[in-house]
Amino acid sequence: MTVPDTMLQMQSTVHADGRLELGLVEVPVPRPAADEVLVRVEAAPINPSDLGVMFGTADLTAVAASEGALPGAVAPIPEKLRAPMAAREGQPIPVGNEGAGVVVAAGDAPAAQELVGRTVAMLGGAMYAQYRCVRVSDCLVLNEGTTPVEGASCFVNPLTALGMTETMRLEGHVGLVHTAAASNLGQMLNRICLADGIPLVNIVRRDSQAQLLRDQGAAHVCNAADADFRDRLTDALEATGATLAFDAIGGGELASTILSCMERAALRTSTGYNRYGSDVHKQVYVYGGLDRGPTIVRRDFGMAWGMGGWLLPPFLQRVGPEVAGRMRQRVADELGTTFRSHYSREVSLREAVSPEQIAIYAKQATGEKYLVRPQA
Amino acid sequence: MTVPDTMLQMQSTVHADGRLELGLVEVPVPRPAADEVLVRVEAAPINPSDLGVMFGTADLTAVAASEGALPGAVAPIPEKLRAPMAAREGQPIPVGNEGAGVVVAAGDAPAAQELVGRTVAMLGGAMYAQYRCVRVSDCLVLNEGTTPVEGASCFVNPLTALGMTETMRLEGHVGLVHTAAASNLGQMLNRICLADGIPLVNIVRRDSQAQLLRDQGAAHVCNAADADFRDRLTDALEATGATLAFDAIGGGELASTILSCMERAALRTSTGYNRYGSDVHKQVYVYGGLDRGPTIVRRDFGMAWGMGGWLLPPFLQRVGPEVAGRMRQRVADELGTTFRSHYSREVSLREAVSPEQIAIYAKQATGEKYLVRPQA
Repeated sequence: MTVPDTMLQMQSTVHADGRLELGLVEVPVPRPAADEVLVRVEAAPINPSDLGVMFGTADLTAVAASEGALPGAVAPIPEKLRAPMAAREGQPIPVGNEGAGVVVAAGDAPAAQELVGRTVAMLGGAMYAQYRCVRVSDCLVLNEGTTPVEGASCFVNPLTALGMTETMRLEGHVGLVHTAAASNLGQMLNRICLADGIPLVNIVRRDSQAQLLRDQGAAHVCNAADADFRDRLTDALEATGATLAFDAIGGGELASTILSCMERAALRTSTGYNRYGSDVHKQVYVYGGLDRGPTIVRRDFGMAWGMGGWLLPPFLQRVGPEVAGRMRQRVADELGTTFRSHYSREVSLREAVSPEQIAIYAKQATGEKYLVRPQA
Repeated sequence: MTVPDTMLQMQSTVHADGRLELGLVEVPVPRPAADEVLVRVEAAPINPSDLGVMFGTADLTAVAASEGALPGAVAPIPEKLRAPMAAREGQPIPVGNEGAGVVVAAGDAPAAQELVGRTVAMLGGAMYAQYRCVRVSDCLVLNEGTTPVEGASCFVNPLTALGMTETMRLEGHVGLVHTAAASNLGQMLNRICLADGIPLVNIVRRDSQAQLLRDQGAAHVCNAADADFRDRLTDALEATGATLAFDAIGGGELASTILSCMERAALRTSTGYNRYGSDVHKQVYVYGGLDRGPTIVRRDFGMAWGMGGWLLPPFLQRVGPEVAGRMRQRVADELGTTFRSHYSREVSLREAVSPEQIAIYAKQATGEKYLVRPQA
């Protein structure tokens, strides 16, 4: 296979003047070391975790095309939001956490040579590019017949969803609650829970999302926009015994409401009055920030509660390589079923940095998930 | 010693009409079983945890004297705050979590008989009464020469303060932050930390409180009312490495600010940019509710954070009887020094249920701590 000398790569840069730039850059195609392979990237999803690196705290209501020779976009970073971005100043960051493609060149090691022509999935950044060089040990070799598009989202969503069920077991809970539950990740979690017999309470914000999940077999779906949401949620929590929630939203009162309804459900089955509330431990992990506003915690749920951040890499460290390996293997085996992803649109690298497309995909609306096709 | 047939006991009752009543009731003096002793209660503190049972969600701006034969006070429970109190309706609850007194009668067991005439400290409710019957195993026998006033607060504050340092060790932190730090509990924690070499960051709200703690040897005191509070707190957090806070306040932004400053302190010593913030785990436990309003959590401190409720009884269960026994012994041994308490006023049972005194002690102002003297 012929490999060019240079390629296009998407980079995000914070400039000293307070602008953030997301643009294409021509860089040399890397050469694989002995234990590495060069992958022609065919497909890479835009996950919410990618958006954080791509745009940081920039004001996305003011995106404009950049004026360089190659396509790109710029957006201002509001003055008061610059501090957290200061460490990035002047350092271009290649973006794209995960992707899949075909091995087109390999180092001398036999394990590397064996992969030539195979389709592999990769995690590790810089995936919004025409080529990516990775170590053999970092490749997930896809089963014969699996396409790069099918294998593009092997890591972030699948491992996060599996991590939620593993966390549930580790921390002694018997059921789960999930917000923004109609997302790709949410649908995946629903399939895992159905397969594994884990009671799951899905929280959505629209009837169409509730219907979508019910059509996929979800037993408990609560619409936060319903007038009787709290009562329905309490019923579902009582029925499932779920005392652990994963919240993708972060801002507002939803996390607090979940804890409050968990407490109401716990008190329904307890007797007598306890001034400190039930002794049932109720936990919410905030793993996303669809609403960047403050979390409002009403503390009307006794004293046995916890809230905290949840992130995949420290979780994988916590459980160790054996559990992580088992999770990864399950993803490879069930890629066409449990862990399948759906994309609303496929875009080229050039389209991905256009202000028009950014305006759509950066909203992170449920159902608007993009797949970057670097060869398009 | 002559023991009367009846005694006065303070009880809190939620009435069906939405009034809460705190009053004195004449009840029979209990007779000790074989392994029990009867204690003439000489002193019992009014702790914040007592106020929760005494007044629940009643409106304390509208306290009036009750009209019964014995002294008492009544206060309305606002309509929307009645639900959490419903389980208490019509059930008088004797109040007062801890106290100390002299054993005046005992059951037949030798271990009980041995205690006659001794001064003991007790935990377990119903201490705002002239007499209290307890099991021998529930007594903490005070050293000879220790008075009931000195031993009245042996459990709640001392074990809570020690529990904070034990939690710090258990969860892998190297320093502590404490809010409302000039309280009796806060001064106690400061003495423990000084004795044990634990770095402690004290947060107060007035200069006089800061001075009081500095006069007691505190190295790090930050006044939340200062304009440069955040910078000073960050400096103190960097100097101490404290990543665990115990918050008595609950409502408002203080807990969030502490997490935010912990993150700033962590980033000062780290290099490079991490979009998810530092990997230093930052934890706040809310153990009180001086501000009953919602906790506002800004989540501007990365993903490695936790917040939750902290309560003494589950903590003691978590560490088990050996550690709990060691903690208890230390309290008995250092009652006159590390674990001494200060009261702003001593009141009789009759005074303790008067609207005038309630108006003062229910405010939980730092420095306004009451001691009930049931024999007065």
